[in-house]
Amino acid sequence: MKNKVVTILGAGAMGSALATPLAARGQEVRLWGTWLDDHLLDAIEAGSPHPRTSVPVPDGVRLYRSDALTEALDGSDVVILAVASVGVDAVVRLAAPHMGHVRLLGVTSKGFLEDSSGKVRLLPESITGIFESLGLPAPIVVAAGGPCKANEVALGRPTATVYGSDDIEAARSLARDIETDDYRIETIDDIIGLEVAAPLKNVYAIALGFADGLERATGEPWHNLKSAIFAQALREMALVATTLGGRAETVFGLAGVGDLEVTGLSGRNKVYGARIGSGETAADALNAMILAEQTVEGVPAATLAVTLAASLLPEAGTTLPLLFAIGSIIEGGSDPLEQLTHAVLPATVDATKRVIV
Amino acid sequence: MKNKVVTILGAGAMGSALATPLAARGQEVRLWGTWLDDHLLDAIEAGSPHPRTSVPVPDGVRLYRSDALTEALDGSDVVILAVASVGVDAVVRLAAPHMGHVRLLGVTSKGFLEDSSGKVRLLPESITGIFESLGLPAPIVVAAGGPCKANEVALGRPTATVYGSDDIEAARSLARDIETDDYRIETIDDIIGLEVAAPLKNVYAIALGFADGLERATGEPWHNLKSAIFAQALREMALVATTLGGRAETVFGLAGVGDLEVTGLSGRNKVYGARIGSGETAADALNAMILAEQTVEGVPAATLAVTLAASLLPEAGTTLPLLFAIGSIIEGGSDPLEQLTHAVLPATVDATKRVIV
Repeated sequence: MKNKVVTILGAGAMGSALATPLAARGQEVRLWGTWLDDHLLDAIEAGSPHPRTSVPVPDGVRLYRSDALTEALDGSDVVILAVASVGVDAVVRLAAPHMGHVRLLGVTSKGFLEDSSGKVRLLPESITGIFESLGLPAPIVVAAGGPCKANEVALGRPTATVYGSDDIEAARSLARDIETDDYRIETIDDIIGLEVAAPLKNVYAIALGFADGLERATGEPWHNLKSAIFAQALREMALVATTLGGRAETVFGLAGVGDLEVTGLSGRNKVYGARIGSGETAADALNAMILAEQTVEGVPAATLAVTLAASLLPEAGTTLPLLFAIGSIIEGGSDPLEQLTHAVLPATVDATKRVIV
Repeated sequence: MKNKVVTILGAGAMGSALATPLAARGQEVRLWGTWLDDHLLDAIEAGSPHPRTSVPVPDGVRLYRSDALTEALDGSDVVILAVASVGVDAVVRLAAPHMGHVRLLGVTSKGFLEDSSGKVRLLPESITGIFESLGLPAPIVVAAGGPCKANEVALGRPTATVYGSDDIEAARSLARDIETDDYRIETIDDIIGLEVAAPLKNVYAIALGFADGLERATGEPWHNLKSAIFAQALREMALVATTLGGRAETVFGLAGVGDLEVTGLSGRNKVYGARIGSGETAADALNAMILAEQTVEGVPAATLAVTLAASLLPEAGTTLPLLFAIGSIIEGGSDPLEQLTHAVLPATVDATKRVIV
């Protein structure tokens, strides 16, 4: 197979990590950094490991500064968008005019986006909308999800990820270009289920972290509560996915179960939740994360998810009690333990509080 | 409501823990210890916390030694079987002749049982079969599952558990007698799904522990692998459940997702797997557990599950690759990491290795 030119937009942890399997497959990898990524490219150029993954970027990867976007995209066969969700809109607007020749856009960014009318959309729909608003043809979006910590991908550790697209052949095409023995890809046509799970798992990981924080504060595990949170989180993710036209089984596979598991094991959302669980106020916890330059993607995602859910489901507060409890807790609502417990424990036997998916 | 007389058979961690919600509901609780439980009853009588949960048994719980089984069962309204799976056959044979007046049998024991013909059965079916073989009427079995660590139940920590029975009204009846604000019960009529998940989660927790052991041995996380194992475990549990006539959604709820999560967080199966993951042979790991008087229920369950699966599914080795990998690893099969990785990573895009549930 002829080598392909793959341009990765975003030189953070996930963008740089994907260079490992791509380079192993012999692709020509271009890594473009945003205006926030200069210090990352500096480190790579100096021969240091990537500051976010602690893993060196493979030899042969070509680096492009933010002002060299045109060159980075010139003649590329595939583009992968790997910026934080807050940067998606700006980067797509910059890149789109130079992507007329690009058929496939991989997306590892995760989040919900609010459009100018206040409507909350899934990321692929938002991205396509940006192209359309610019009067440009949109590439086919292939979204990446599933349990995929960037530093482990960069190290070549075994990873099972999921690529989803309305066009399953597009997902398979991208997967063929990047899969290795260690980085393996399940392809699905349910991009809705995948893109519901990807940002929501960050929200629910806050609640998993809360249970860890309780354990730290009390010196004893709260594993029954944590596991009830885990199960309820999946139930709610499945309800949101099916309401939007996606499939529950996507949530109950690698994209939901697997990604929630990995996000609950470590990561910023879990750490933020653990701070609250160990007694900090939500505001103090978020300030501490900000001071440590740790973006907690689950916080804005929770607010957007509550807005989205309320627009979709008339009884959202009842059918998605955990989501709404997390929404309340991050806004400083009182007694988080009581709120979470009430949200995840079954009702009394003769009550009918909970709608089962 | 009139108080009920509830006899718990088995004074180990789970049996004694259930005394907490039962006593809180004002039931008359009788705790019967097997011939292996004398030291546990000694400790309780001496006013010490229960040795397995480190929590005192509530005041008013009456203790019965193994030779007082008739007295323990005399006039009881409900019986709960809470012995280890290896003790189920013997205890049911002893108790059955004294249970003619008992309509409901709760079961917290978890495991598969092999009958005299070598056929592997789920626990409720085995228990009913023992009554029938003795020419006695069998009570309605209500099985308990879901994420429920005994010491947290004993402490009154928030717990979401699942009671399942072919007779949903029986499950609800038992739940009404024991539910409290902290110990809440989801009732389902899919006892098959519940009883597939209950022992299988012990098996799959060995593989989750393996990933933890790798982390300990290498000093770096293998979270992508662990999460892929988690997702594949649920996929396989759902396939076994549906093949036996149960429902996938039971596995994707508290009974499967929740219970696998709690079992992967701590417990003997996870610890045993972690020993193998950190480099011990399977035999050494099991010996170390035995020396510490730690029964690893997932080991015999794995062997029985492989037998059961092979009898149910002609292509079981292909459709349940993780179960068979664990079966191989506990028998000392070489290169456990390679076996687990191969079992849980998706096939290459153009292969069709994996059957999706």
